[in-house]
Amino acid sequence: MSGTAQIGVTGLAVMGRNLARNFARNGYTVALHNRTTSRTDSLVEEFGTEGDFVAARTPEEFVAALERPRRLVVMVKAGDPTDAVIQEFAPLLEEGDVIIDGGNAHFEDTRRRERELRERGIHFVGAGISGGEEGALNGPSIMPGGSAESYASLGPMLEKIAARAKDGTPCTTHIGPDGAGHFVKMVHNGIEYADMQLIAEAYDLLRSVAGYSPARIADVFRSWNTGRLDSYLIEITAEVLAHTDAATGKPFVDIVQDRAEQKGTGRWTVQIALDLGVPVSGIAEAVFARSLSGHADLRDAARDLPGPVPEPLDERAAAVFADRVEQALYASKIVSYTQGFHQIRAGSEEYGWNIDLGAVAAIWRAGCIIRAAFLDRIRAAYDSRPDLVSLLSDKEFGQEIGAAQDDWRAVVAEAVRQGVPTPGFAAALSYYDGLRADRLPAALTQGQRDFFGAHTYRRTDREGSFHTLWGGDRREVEAG
Amino acid sequence: MSGTAQIGVTGLAVMGRNLARNFARNGYTVALHNRTTSRTDSLVEEFGTEGDFVAARTPEEFVAALERPRRLVVMVKAGDPTDAVIQEFAPLLEEGDVIIDGGNAHFEDTRRRERELRERGIHFVGAGISGGEEGALNGPSIMPGGSAESYASLGPMLEKIAARAKDGTPCTTHIGPDGAGHFVKMVHNGIEYADMQLIAEAYDLLRSVAGYSPARIADVFRSWNTGRLDSYLIEITAEVLAHTDAATGKPFVDIVQDRAEQKGTGRWTVQIALDLGVPVSGIAEAVFARSLSGHADLRDAARDLPGPVPEPLDERAAAVFADRVEQALYASKIVSYTQGFHQIRAGSEEYGWNIDLGAVAAIWRAGCIIRAAFLDRIRAAYDSRPDLVSLLSDKEFGQEIGAAQDDWRAVVAEAVRQGVPTPGFAAALSYYDGLRADRLPAALTQGQRDFFGAHTYRRTDREGSFHTLWGGDRREVEAG
Repeated sequence: MSGTAQIGVTGLAVMGRNLARNFARNGYTVALHNRTTSRTDSLVEEFGTEGDFVAARTPEEFVAALERPRRLVVMVKAGDPTDAVIQEFAPLLEEGDVIIDGGNAHFEDTRRRERELRERGIHFVGAGISGGEEGALNGPSIMPGGSAESYASLGPMLEKIAARAKDGTPCTTHIGPDGAGHFVKMVHNGIEYADMQLIAEAYDLLRSVAGYSPARIADVFRSWNTGRLDSYLIEITAEVLAHTDAATGKPFVDIVQDRAEQKGTGRWTVQIALDLGVPVSGIAEAVFARSLSGHADLRDAARDLPGPVPEPLDERAAAVFADRVEQALYASKIVSYTQGFHQIRAGSEEYGWNIDLGAVAAIWRAGCIIRAAFLDRIRAAYDSRPDLVSLLSDKEFGQEIGAAQDDWRAVVAEAVRQGVPTPGFAAALSYYDGLRADRLPAALTQGQRDFFGAHTYRRTDREGSFHTLWGGDRREVEAG
Repeated sequence: MSGTAQIGVTGLAVMGRNLARNFARNGYTVALHNRTTSRTDSLVEEFGTEGDFVAARTPEEFVAALERPRRLVVMVKAGDPTDAVIQEFAPLLEEGDVIIDGGNAHFEDTRRRERELRERGIHFVGAGISGGEEGALNGPSIMPGGSAESYASLGPMLEKIAARAKDGTPCTTHIGPDGAGHFVKMVHNGIEYADMQLIAEAYDLLRSVAGYSPARIADVFRSWNTGRLDSYLIEITAEVLAHTDAATGKPFVDIVQDRAEQKGTGRWTVQIALDLGVPVSGIAEAVFARSLSGHADLRDAARDLPGPVPEPLDERAAAVFADRVEQALYASKIVSYTQGFHQIRAGSEEYGWNIDLGAVAAIWRAGCIIRAAFLDRIRAAYDSRPDLVSLLSDKEFGQEIGAAQDDWRAVVAEAVRQGVPTPGFAAALSYYDGLRADRLPAALTQGQRDFFGAHTYRRTDREGSFHTLWGGDRREVEAG
């Protein structure tokens, strides 16, 4: 016996609820389940007219309500709660059924769950979903991993509820096997951290060095948003900066505590990048900037350390400086995306996922937090050269960053001189200069390592590993 | 029945062999064991006159050779080989015996092993040992974790073979329970990465911007080594830079491939710091700089990117610049150690280790790779104020970094202008400016997070969590 619902959602907090409504609004019959049944009832009560819902009170009822192969979307907290729900439902399922985890799971957990369920004949799809509450309801960017077979059954439904890029294509695609979807979502969030940090630095410079008010900076961001920086994050930055706190009449941004919080995906991105040997300095600095801001004790202890107090520029110089900040922000953003896409490529190679980088850029063009006009150009870069080793080696991006670099340098130098912290801008510039360097001082590092640890080195002029007898007569010997 | 050896060493590769000789030279009878017995034989043959060795051919012979409580030092590769050796020996041991792991284990592994062996009544001591081959033989810095009881039995022997600081105190102390020793060793290595990166940047600037030859830079480092930068790494930097390659007659540093390698402890340091919420940007940039240098494909693809070619300064300006580089290096070094000691404090709090930070600085004064005059001052800072929240809040270090900051800024600005990558110097300066900032743009970040994810924010003027109805009439509501 089989039910009539094409899809089910269990876990009806705001994300699950909105996702269920999105499916229903798109013509699917949606089975609903929540541990506390009042949530199920209130969803049906409030939004029952939006489409066809089947409210289930128990896991058994929920599973019975689904047509086969069953498709169950799990929208609970990442970690143990996800495992608990899987343990609860898996025994009720049959071969060929599909469990979709729409939470922010660590991709290693997704790999494990996929493997365990595969052995039981159940497809497990770790699907990264970006776009927040609003995206879940009206069209998110969806990054599903798992088997090709599961995507054949599930994909058309995801394509229907996903956001659409300007050219009409849906913002979802089969990312790759097992943990590929959650991996890509993780890096998406890491890039989001970097984007936000770079915007924060741009704001800080416009405030301290250009001497602009928040309202005026909102205007600057609005104008940037009509150009190559056109993106959701730039748009909402203008909104936040233009907002006035009703209680005090002050700019909203001035009454918010300056301690940024985080939920973990940025941290994971950096930790995994370290395992993969991918330099993601821009993302790392963004994560560190948040944690630094939260260390009230360290900040209090350091407040009296000497340093320059920024002297705002005059009106004319400020306008020139603001234009330069746009260049610095854009150049640093190119570096963040270069690092993020490098990490996806490295992950894909490590785990054999065969991820299409152009397709990833394409599905980030709408629905997700980092959606931006810019991503259409990244898509184009990878579509024309799928083997592109680095975004910086794309001709257009290379030309743009090259054209921006004088201003970028001027901005970082000014920030350094005036004592405004720009860890993201500076790290991105060091990455740029590091990659284009003809010779890096890493040769000295190798020499030191050989000196104190006999770690050996390679020569520029012949093959092999070598060691110098530093403690002896300093002859060079070939190492085993 | 009990043997006569006070200590045993199993695993007689170069580190184990030198450690065994060190014990023997200090008057202990040392039992020796190695899977391949030829290594045991050759040790006795070559160095048997240095002291009393008992060569054992089997694990049973080895254990029988030890007096009780038995003390076995395991010197094998970290990871599975360590577990294999423990599995092999533990069944042969009795309550109260002590296994010492002298390898570079991950402290989480050490915690697990300590717990498992404790249940069997066996003490497990994860002991970080720094100083390379030479240190193992003549006196390393030793960072033992484990129970206080195990240190009571083992400590006096470790104190005998350890390096001695100038004031005569041995470079070992009981760090704290279970994984504390390996944790501290890990951070030691992270700081070592940062130190080496900062030295590499200083060298690069002296070469490219000051226009000095490697031999001349060796002289600069030699002179720095007579001042506050006096340290082993500065000393060997001068040695490496002064060395000429016999085959080509060129400076040695110019014939070494500029791809730095790594063995993992730097990466671990950053990964664990991220878990602990400690900003270790200087260490992270050092790890990233090494991995960046190794990505030949990315570097090849980026080599034609536009940027300045450094123009060496004239003789007089170069001398001024070189002095400034010393200031930048010293200030950045203070930041690295600030970050590293913050991580140790955070780890100690997280795991309840109660680590004495002054004692850690004290045992790093000799024997280990980062040994430096500087560490005696860190010891003094923590000894006078054990609750010191940050090295930067120590009066003397605060004054020194304050006095250095103008030159530090000038150096970073010049590097940025001339296109020389200085990720370590720049990250350290951003950390400094971030901590001393009155307001950080993290307030904007919190506003953005509330906008797209309803993550809420705190206000500067009242308690509680708040959310603005960004999608509605933008009223502020108090969050649950």
